[in-house]
Amino acid sequence: MTRIVIHEVGLRDGLQMEREVVPLEIKEGWIRQAVTSGVDIIQVGSFVHPVKVPQMADTDELFRRLRRDKTSSVVLSGLVLNERGLERGLECGVEMFCLGASASETHSMKNTGMSSSEATRRIIGSAQQALAAGKKVQVSVQSAFGCGFEGPIAEERVLTMVAAYLEAGLRNISLADTAGHAFPDQVERLFAAVFKLDPSVEITCHFHNTYGLGMANILTALRSGVSLFETSFAGLGGCPFTRVAAGNVATEDFVHALQLQGQRQDVDLAQLITLARDVAKYFDRDMPGCVHKTGPLHRVGQETGQKKETE
Amino acid sequence: MTRIVIHEVGLRDGLQMEREVVPLEIKEGWIRQAVTSGVDIIQVGSFVHPVKVPQMADTDELFRRLRRDKTSSVVLSGLVLNERGLERGLECGVEMFCLGASASETHSMKNTGMSSSEATRRIIGSAQQALAAGKKVQVSVQSAFGCGFEGPIAEERVLTMVAAYLEAGLRNISLADTAGHAFPDQVERLFAAVFKLDPSVEITCHFHNTYGLGMANILTALRSGVSLFETSFAGLGGCPFTRVAAGNVATEDFVHALQLQGQRQDVDLAQLITLARDVAKYFDRDMPGCVHKTGPLHRVGQETGQKKETE
Repeated sequence: MTRIVIHEVGLRDGLQMEREVVPLEIKEGWIRQAVTSGVDIIQVGSFVHPVKVPQMADTDELFRRLRRDKTSSVVLSGLVLNERGLERGLECGVEMFCLGASASETHSMKNTGMSSSEATRRIIGSAQQALAAGKKVQVSVQSAFGCGFEGPIAEERVLTMVAAYLEAGLRNISLADTAGHAFPDQVERLFAAVFKLDPSVEITCHFHNTYGLGMANILTALRSGVSLFETSFAGLGGCPFTRVAAGNVATEDFVHALQLQGQRQDVDLAQLITLARDVAKYFDRDMPGCVHKTGPLHRVGQETGQKKETE
Repeated sequence: MTRIVIHEVGLRDGLQMEREVVPLEIKEGWIRQAVTSGVDIIQVGSFVHPVKVPQMADTDELFRRLRRDKTSSVVLSGLVLNERGLERGLECGVEMFCLGASASETHSMKNTGMSSSEATRRIIGSAQQALAAGKKVQVSVQSAFGCGFEGPIAEERVLTMVAAYLEAGLRNISLADTAGHAFPDQVERLFAAVFKLDPSVEITCHFHNTYGLGMANILTALRSGVSLFETSFAGLGGCPFTRVAAGNVATEDFVHALQLQGQRQDVDLAQLITLARDVAKYFDRDMPGCVHKTGPLHRVGQETGQKKETE
């Protein structure tokens, strides 16, 4: 069985949706907690214009700080949308570059000001530069399961983008359900089609829980042979440039589900729950995740903060 | 393919968890909305002692009112835990009797004051009486996937109860995840074992979303050949006699997921969403369901009340 890889994207996909700019020291603390938990990859932030997304203005500085005393084997990733972002990422020590283009024309225009094919072409160029610089690289198809503006996205458009990535030598490919439109039958179908294109492709998935299907979709992806998963602490998240966004699948809920099935027992779930609770406390509101509220299943009855028995 | 049957249990499993006693007229209005939506079975309430569960004190009267002018083919069900409940149910016109015993000794004692085997024995007696009276009957195994007090429940205990029900001629059997401990691999395994006992058994499932796995579990059950599903409007619910309870899978979210996959297009999802919104408005708090907040997927962009685009 392939090893399941967990990519924590709360720092990026989660925080970009928040009105509030989280101070660098707080972010750094959260990242260090995530490192301790034993997740495999942590997305530190994105390299976008600080005026457009002020929540991500300190991404470069965060990378510098984290790289300074780094001892763990965790991979620190950064999201890059254009050439300027790539430059910044190369300067500050990004270890894994995540780049993406949208399969939806409308989403692509709103998110990047470029058509889908133009964005794909430019992303491929940047991704190849990052590869040439010896970096890990992941390229994604955003809105791969549907678009909040356009509705359904033809499977063929997604497969065309995947084929273009593969042809360009980019083998770690993420299908992102940006708007949360995916449903399990579709997930199974689309991943089967991608593996048919190339059975050895490294596929990552990324699901939002807009319609309550996030966990069902991610577990379907797991069953379909996908082994890399992007999730967010406490279930934070959402794309600011789509409609009706909702959070990602919560990292601690996903790890909890995996551990119930006997997988990834090496991840420190208690640490992930503490992180999610810290995040919930910081924002002082109810978060979408479940397990940071209930405590993990095997400790029911001993968890502090659980609901009182109503009898 | 077997027809998927939807059993709305929000009026019982949902309301029993609420501090507030919902007035009879409000309940009646919600039931009539559910009838209009085209779900197949509606659980009107339970027959328990009005002092113990005052939220259910008007169950008899509700049945009488609903039966008076009933024209639809919807089946009106009632939950019965003992002989007195059966008597009351037979008097007021219950069409389908739901009876159950817990696979967990501790849960059984707390819920009924009887051991699991004693409760099972008595339930079987009542169920046979209801059958003899020409009624539809469903018998359930509560805490079939784990217990908030005892933790894991041996599959064998569940199968022993199922075998006892089958032997007694009771063929509609529900496995209830009272505490929300189920996970997809377990769901698949347990239902496979039940179908092995008797491939023609009519199996109902009932999942709570305590750890974020409710929808994943219900869709796994569907894939495993289960065709009867108990869900609650807006995702209300929880057993007052277990620990760390959470709501059921939301009826409108489940129907939404089914319709995305091309199933049960005959159910009026808009009506279910209106009902969930009315329920949320009545309780004036955030409800666990998703789709009544976002609107259904195929109408994204035209829904009123959706989140504003953040761009």
